[in-house]
Amino acid sequence: MIIKADKYRERVSKLRPRLFIGGKRVEKLMDHPITRAVIEAGVKTCELSNDPRYEDIMTAKSHLSGEKISRAVYIPASTEDMEKRLEMSRLFSRELGTCNPRCAEAALFPVLFATTWEMDKKKGTDYHQRFVKYLKYIQENDLMVNAAITDVRGDRSKRPLEQQDPDSYLHIVERKSDGIVVRGARQNQTIAYACDEILVVPGIVFRPGEEDYAVSFVVPNGTEGMTFISQYNAWSAEREYAEDIRYLGNPYGQRETCLIIFDNVFIPWERVFLCGETEYLPALLSRFAKNSRFNGAGACKAGFMDLIIGATKTISEYHGLSNKPRIIDEITRMIEIRDTCWACGIAAAHKGKEEPVGSGVWFSDEILSNITKLNAGRFWEVLELAGDIAGGIIATMPHERELENPEVKEYVAKYLKTSVPAYKRMRMIKFLQTWVCGFHGVEAWHGGGPRQAEMISLYRLTDLEGVKEVAKKLAGLQD
Amino acid sequence: MIIKADKYRERVSKLRPRLFIGGKRVEKLMDHPITRAVIEAGVKTCELSNDPRYEDIMTAKSHLSGEKISRAVYIPASTEDMEKRLEMSRLFSRELGTCNPRCAEAALFPVLFATTWEMDKKKGTDYHQRFVKYLKYIQENDLMVNAAITDVRGDRSKRPLEQQDPDSYLHIVERKSDGIVVRGARQNQTIAYACDEILVVPGIVFRPGEEDYAVSFVVPNGTEGMTFISQYNAWSAEREYAEDIRYLGNPYGQRETCLIIFDNVFIPWERVFLCGETEYLPALLSRFAKNSRFNGAGACKAGFMDLIIGATKTISEYHGLSNKPRIIDEITRMIEIRDTCWACGIAAAHKGKEEPVGSGVWFSDEILSNITKLNAGRFWEVLELAGDIAGGIIATMPHERELENPEVKEYVAKYLKTSVPAYKRMRMIKFLQTWVCGFHGVEAWHGGGPRQAEMISLYRLTDLEGVKEVAKKLAGLQD
Amino acid sequence: MIIKADKYRERVSKLRPRLFIGGKRVEKLMDHPITRAVIEAGVKTCELSNDPRYEDIMTAKSHLSGEKISRAVYIPASTEDMEKRLEMSRLFSRELGTCNPRCAEAALFPVLFATTWEMDKKKGTDYHQRFVKYLKYIQENDLMVNAAITDVRGDRSKRPLEQQDPDSYLHIVERKSDGIVVRGARQNQTIAYACDEILVVPGIVFRPGEEDYAVSFVVPNGTEGMTFISQYNAWSAEREYAEDIRYLGNPYGQRETCLIIFDNVFIPWERVFLCGETEYLPALLSRFAKNSRFNGAGACKAGFMDLIIGATKTISEYHGLSNKPRIIDEITRMIEIRDTCWACGIAAAHKGKEEPVGSGVWFSDEILSNITKLNAGRFWEVLELAGDIAGGIIATMPHERELENPEVKEYVAKYLKTSVPAYKRMRMIKFLQTWVCGFHGVEAWHGGGPRQAEMISLYRLTDLEGVKEVAKKLAGLQD
Amino acid sequence: MIIKADKYRERVSKLRPRLFIGGKRVEKLMDHPITRAVIEAGVKTCELSNDPRYEDIMTAKSHLSGEKISRAVYIPASTEDMEKRLEMSRLFSRELGTCNPRCAEAALFPVLFATTWEMDKKKGTDYHQRFVKYLKYIQENDLMVNAAITDVRGDRSKRPLEQQDPDSYLHIVERKSDGIVVRGARQNQTIAYACDEILVVPGIVFRPGEEDYAVSFVVPNGTEGMTFISQYNAWSAEREYAEDIRYLGNPYGQRETCLIIFDNVFIPWERVFLCGETEYLPALLSRFAKNSRFNGAGACKAGFMDLIIGATKTISEYHGLSNKPRIIDEITRMIEIRDTCWACGIAAAHKGKEEPVGSGVWFSDEILSNITKLNAGRFWEVLELAGDIAGGIIATMPHERELENPEVKEYVAKYLKTSVPAYKRMRMIKFLQTWVCGFHGVEAWHGGGPRQAEMISLYRLTDLEGVKEVAKKLAGLQD
Repeated sequence: MIIKADKYRERVSKLRPRLFIGGKRVEKLMDHPITRAVIEAGVKTCELSNDPRYEDIMTAKSHLSGEKISRAVYIPASTEDMEKRLEMSRLFSRELGTCNPRCAEAALFPVLFATTWEMDKKKGTDYHQRFVKYLKYIQENDLMVNAAITDVRGDRSKRPLEQQDPDSYLHIVERKSDGIVVRGARQNQTIAYACDEILVVPGIVFRPGEEDYAVSFVVPNGTEGMTFISQYNAWSAEREYAEDIRYLGNPYGQRETCLIIFDNVFIPWERVFLCGETEYLPALLSRFAKNSRFNGAGACKAGFMDLIIGATKTISEYHGLSNKPRIIDEITRMIEIRDTCWACGIAAAHKGKEEPVGSGVWFSDEILSNITKLNAGRFWEVLELAGDIAGGIIATMPHERELENPEVKEYVAKYLKTSVPAYKRMRMIKFLQTWVCGFHGVEAWHGGGPRQAEMISLYRLTDLEGVKEVAKKLAGLQD
Repeated sequence: MIIKADKYRERVSKLRPRLFIGGKRVEKLMDHPITRAVIEAGVKTCELSNDPRYEDIMTAKSHLSGEKISRAVYIPASTEDMEKRLEMSRLFSRELGTCNPRCAEAALFPVLFATTWEMDKKKGTDYHQRFVKYLKYIQENDLMVNAAITDVRGDRSKRPLEQQDPDSYLHIVERKSDGIVVRGARQNQTIAYACDEILVVPGIVFRPGEEDYAVSFVVPNGTEGMTFISQYNAWSAEREYAEDIRYLGNPYGQRETCLIIFDNVFIPWERVFLCGETEYLPALLSRFAKNSRFNGAGACKAGFMDLIIGATKTISEYHGLSNKPRIIDEITRMIEIRDTCWACGIAAAHKGKEEPVGSGVWFSDEILSNITKLNAGRFWEVLELAGDIAGGIIATMPHERELENPEVKEYVAKYLKTSVPAYKRMRMIKFLQTWVCGFHGVEAWHGGGPRQAEMISLYRLTDLEGVKEVAKKLAGLQD
Repeated sequence: MIIKADKYRERVSKLRPRLFIGGKRVEKLMDHPITRAVIEAGVKTCELSNDPRYEDIMTAKSHLSGEKISRAVYIPASTEDMEKRLEMSRLFSRELGTCNPRCAEAALFPVLFATTWEMDKKKGTDYHQRFVKYLKYIQENDLMVNAAITDVRGDRSKRPLEQQDPDSYLHIVERKSDGIVVRGARQNQTIAYACDEILVVPGIVFRPGEEDYAVSFVVPNGTEGMTFISQYNAWSAEREYAEDIRYLGNPYGQRETCLIIFDNVFIPWERVFLCGETEYLPALLSRFAKNSRFNGAGACKAGFMDLIIGATKTISEYHGLSNKPRIIDEITRMIEIRDTCWACGIAAAHKGKEEPVGSGVWFSDEILSNITKLNAGRFWEVLELAGDIAGGIIATMPHERELENPEVKEYVAKYLKTSVPAYKRMRMIKFLQTWVCGFHGVEAWHGGGPRQAEMISLYRLTDLEGVKEVAKKLAGLQD
Repeated sequence: MIIKADKYRERVSKLRPRLFIGGKRVEKLMDHPITRAVIEAGVKTCELSNDPRYEDIMTAKSHLSGEKISRAVYIPASTEDMEKRLEMSRLFSRELGTCNPRCAEAALFPVLFATTWEMDKKKGTDYHQRFVKYLKYIQENDLMVNAAITDVRGDRSKRPLEQQDPDSYLHIVERKSDGIVVRGARQNQTIAYACDEILVVPGIVFRPGEEDYAVSFVVPNGTEGMTFISQYNAWSAEREYAEDIRYLGNPYGQRETCLIIFDNVFIPWERVFLCGETEYLPALLSRFAKNSRFNGAGACKAGFMDLIIGATKTISEYHGLSNKPRIIDEITRMIEIRDTCWACGIAAAHKGKEEPVGSGVWFSDEILSNITKLNAGRFWEVLELAGDIAGGIIATMPHERELENPEVKEYVAKYLKTSVPAYKRMRMIKFLQTWVCGFHGVEAWHGGGPRQAEMISLYRLTDLEGVKEVAKKLAGLQD
């Protein structure tokens, strides 16, 4: 099924997470400007998924049911599928300018599909069967599933069991006949409170002896014991008190994440997909890294850069500067970064392969996925170039509501117009301000793992012996 | 006189600018959280100026009255004075973490002193006499004078008289026996509404035929016809609605600037310091560029980088990561940028000279001042490094007020603590967030002129013939 | 046919180009150390082409004859073919560490195949028929064809006909019944004098009125009127006077290029493939740019970087420093650049398509080809990192022949050994020196067009209207 | 005394070092093209020192004798002296384009003066007395003294006494009544064989237990037991076989360094200035680092950059491209790097101070000296920009001697001319080639210590506690 926008809005308005934003409880998601923006982003994804122009990108045929489903919950079975996923992500990013609620499931369902398949095959467990059943349910209802991955980690130089507080990493506190009880927290989750379900997967490789931490499961939004504590920053305050959504630069919000508390939450066995099998974590995390780095970096950030480049070019035209050699040079450098990032994503998809062989699931190439993410880290340069071109006004502009203020509106209209009326310039500047002066730089840098994580992977994965050998041969040092 | 903090607070609370912030009129500056923060920054500058530890840096002996005055209103008469100015600026920046109200007068009074001296000498005008009288008045009362420099400029590819609206650049609309009437607007003025006076100087080199635009004068805050329209962005909203100043990262605010409207404002002759003498604008603007680029860049930004480096180092310790080679390397790169910037400022000051000879005023070296600003533009790299070290939490942290929220405070305290209690970590992260995720990157880039302005100056000022000659000599191409 | 190494050596030793190196005539190519190195590189390409391990990469089935031929003279007919070409280029580069004689034909034959096909189809000419006949001849004999593209250009701000000397661009000086006569010069041709034939194609888009310059033809090496003037630099001198090839870092030489003079050279019509059709030059040059930028940049430079990374890693081990975090970080940055470059090449190949439709020839994606070349321009950073890791010795090492010098050999052996004997260290340092302290940085930068050429293409090819539109939509500025 | 050029040439021609270049013994320095170039550089320094235009920069009044002496052997006694030293170094660099024989003594004499003063004062030794006597002798005869600092170091992860070969670091092998006997080698010494004397100072901080390695002394060139093994690279070969010095780009050579062997060399006590006092090495090395990093980096490299910028600008004019915005931008970036480097050197000099207090010797500021060197490391960027502007010809140019070759000279003259005759363009390209395609990039990077050495110093020297404190204060975390 592909859910329609109105059906989605109806369904999501019934969710009742225990949610706090800026110190206050939010009862109904449609009643708060921040959560409403997140839902409208979800609505937009439904519209795009039902748009016939994008059918090929946004939908696929389930190999479980044979029905048309959202590509976000589809298990990719070819490099062609991987490339379409890139196109889906880029379309979401450039149409929303913020996170979309389909991101996490698209990244993680293939990982769990492959890893549970492997476990069942080698260990005779029934995880895969459970997961496939669950996946059918998701596909049939086109549910949106968020993922909770990153532990709070306490003292980062210590392992989980060495921490002062054992809950610094989420773990099983009790194993019962009908399920498990878990405690801990997961952080940095965008959109989680507005999704139908939350999927938990381990965020690091837990080792033998740390089996209680090696756990993956799924839990419906609103389950007893779960609390969402949303980020609340300056942009949140601005949105909370804004009288008009047009004043905010982006109607779909600014990617507020949340901290999710699991306070003795009960999970029935049929919703548990990994429970203590530490030996499968290296493969699971490598698969997740591939998916989040080739796609979340290559495609998602390319989509954001589309917006930034488009806004910057527009402003340069509004300011009468678009033909200056320096401006053209700087915009071309922005394009260079975007297209490098995109090219690396394409290559990572194209060089992907089935993993494990026989599972039917395809993943991108690991080295090239890391390369993609490393190039996406140049996002910050794009912001810097945008800031340079837009000029000081991007940091100093009066508020658009002054155009409604009878005492000064004529002044503002008179002095902020350029070749276009003041309101056009002000909106485009505001839109670009959300990027250049906002939280996106850091988010692009750290989302999917910081640069250092990719560097470590890259060094480890590279065939250095091979290149040493060819160098020695030419240097006359054949052994 | 050096004004005391309480005297200053009393004086500033009596100011009654016609001021709008976020669509609303602000009547009393002490009543609004944004303007109050600006005033508290001013108060802090008074405390520093009266602090005996900083007497040598913060004060000087007036060459007009022989009395001890604030260095901000002192005319530097040696390279030693220039260096002390750098130290004053850096101290202000590192103690305030935002703009200070003494910045503009320190940058511009020497410019007007020198330029009026030159005009009187060559043209027999009495501008210098007027200015000296005015300067005495300022020194005697330790007044804070803001400067309005940047026109709104309309279509940037056109000269003032070619603009659709002649008011796109501020200009004289009437010359009377007792003074002039001016109309136009000036933008990007930090703190202006909280200063005692506003000084207007031309922001570009107006040419013969554009004499009405070549005007410099000073006007008391609150004068008939003037309106201040303050910037209002996300951080403004957060501050407006914050219940506790400690939640805001920096008590002294986020550098909101304003647009100043001059709607037929009358200026008596004794307050006019330049009126149509276009031939003096190149020197005037070059002097201003020197002052704002060696000092506003070298010292001010070094002071901000002190704070960013200090906060980043602290967070790396809180996270248990401060001994990792990568962290040490990145912090060292931050220091490298800061100290390069500072070194260039020192060199620019040290290579300064009296200008014009005989005037008694000293300016920094022009090439080295541009070099200083260009290096200060690497501020953005410092932010990027800080964001990398601080980690994703800098973009995703819940609000500190959750620590007061009875329903979740234990969760937040439990899950956000590291080697230090949660509140410490949260405050330091918030402080750093105001830099890394805020408006400072763009402001550091554009304040004092964008990179391109410095590049143009640098190319123009460089002796390329000299280096061509030495190259030719070695290449065997002596003519 | 795939020529065998010994057959090739025999054939090439019979070539008699009119060749000057360093002011002296070279009669026999096997007699001069510089030309001999170039021939040995050619020999090595033959060995690789006949190596069964590389059969799939190095050979293909001709669509003209159905026989197995070298991939270098094969017309690619799928994206798979394009990728194999990348692998061929990378293999050549990493095995030779210098230019290979198959590079130009691989880049240009598809261009001429496609463009002559188009001309014949639209204009009823017989160029394609001529070219196909010629191509069969090449494939049957596995000939190596160099290309002469870059005119000397005189005053670069002037068009060909405005030049003081009309020969600044190569052109037709006479049209006869049996052929044409051409005059001019082409520069920067690596290996030309050691190839069987020279292919001339236009290097810029000549315009209507400049028809005499719009000419493409092929001419056998040794034809009357042609002179080769080889570059002769420091590395040439070192090679000319070396007593042992092992002292030189790379047995295959240092990419000396030459200037080729065409002094009234006669070309029969059957060897002319374009003659005055200026309207086909934009497509021809765009096709050439694609081929040289996705392949010559992505694959060739990745192969060179393989060698540099391998040598650097080896030296770090010889010096006992390979486990230092800084060294690992820097080597990983080298890998990052290499793999980004390679990824972009893969993406450019993969997104390629048939052009013109129906011609059967495939070209890479133009945007992504430019992106590949831009990233290959980071070659210089790789050299800088290699130089940093190798240490000062890379610039200061005594000559290896001191190890044969009875008076000092014990000193050198004693003081230059590390964990390996001195000769090993010295050879590897010498090999890396040919890169870090040599001509390769500039060559990688300019070969295939300087950065600026790619930037101009990239800006021109990018859909800026599309990204402006999505930005406007989110900013609330839908028209 | 200031030695005259002809006197110097006479003196140096009598030197008889045991010297090997490229496997061959060189008996007379004036007979070999490489050593002759080095001597001509020395001659040029004499001419500059006797040039009345540079008297103030090049000479000073000895505080020992009161006579006018070369500034290279003068002990700086003020920040003004330090700045003049910068000007001297820059002048040498821009007039020679290579190393000068006065560099080492200028860097090291103040270090030994200060450190022996300190030792005598605290330990009652007579090192200072010996050194002062020696310094007088040098000043009276205006001798040129090279320095041997860098040990070969074997396995870099091991201390001297842990090495397989104890001679991996130079050390005392015997202490006699009349002097000491030393063994070992020092590497990377430019010009050493053409100087009057060789000064040995420790290159690392040797520790207690390693006293035999903590030794400083001076030895006349030609002393029994010493052997010089010169580097011999491609540029050496080119120079050795060149028929005309004008073909070589720079008449003064390419900075060949040498390995100096000390095979049981006897040093009388009066020439020993430190012998086992390991506790003084940290100060000694810090002083040396200051001198070599503020001056050898800031001034020397600025002088080289003068030449590179001059040559690049000239070529851009020869090619008709000097008004293109891209060219202007790139040249301005070269200037930016040069002037940043110079500014940091100026600041380091200006913030210098007497050290130890009372010694009368002045040193630059240590942090700023490291900052200077770090910025000088951007030399490589300057080379890259020069290579971009000069174009492919810089890597592909035929040899100038082809202009004398009767068979091709007309072709070369015709096809290599631009707005200037071919020979002018070819010489300027050749000159720039010695930089862009040569050994200077690595030398600028490693000379005076690699980047990593400066980074470690910078981190260690920085007041991080101070900046943490101000950050905490603003974040509301006062303790």
